Amino acid sequence: MDLVVIVGYVAAACSVASFVPQAWKIVRTRDTEALSPPMYALTTAGFLLWTIYGIAQGQWPLILTNTICFVLASFILAMTLLSGRAKRKVADAIDPGS
Amino acid sequence: MDLVVIVGYVAAACSVASFVPQAWKIVRTRDTEALSPPMYALTTAGFLLWTIYGIAQGQWPLILTNTICFVLASFILAMTLLSGRAKRKVADAIDPGS
Repeated sequence: MDLVVIVGYVAAACSVASFVPQAWKIVRTRDTEALSPPMYALTTAGFLLWTIYGIAQGQWPLILTNTICFVLASFILAMTLLSGRAKRKVADAIDPGS
Repeated sequence: MDLVVIVGYVAAACSVASFVPQAWKIVRTRDTEALSPPMYALTTAGFLLWTIYGIAQGQWPLILTNTICFVLASFILAMTLLSGRAKRKVADAIDPGS
């Protein structure tokens, strides 16, 4: 495989995977104090539009990666907007141990 | 201009702009407690690789947007890794008023 294509795949993997540790940290700590809701509103809108763009272009790699990012970014956005009580309820449902 | 192309431009604008409110919130509050350093390590690596990919492909829109994202994500990563004192020094230099 072309080295440039591999760089593209690794770049996409980093971008998609990046939201996992943040989402998990929120579930573990129930803390979103320092997070910026406008950041996650913009990034969620961006991934939704990238997914639409991918569908319009028929590009499956774009659709797949941006749908995953959209779901993860939406979750983080929702957690930054929920009240402390609702946030704990969601986190308890995902990770009852913490 | 084709509607699909416009969707792509707006998607790119959302993705790039998303880091600004988070970076600004850190400068204003000096608080990175809830942020995930692994998220910003992955996202910074991703943008660096996307920039390299853009250079290799000679795609200026990729190079431009990913370089801006790389700079903003690097700044956020650095702020999550700095000690409280160093973080306040950097924030004071950027925004002495807060």
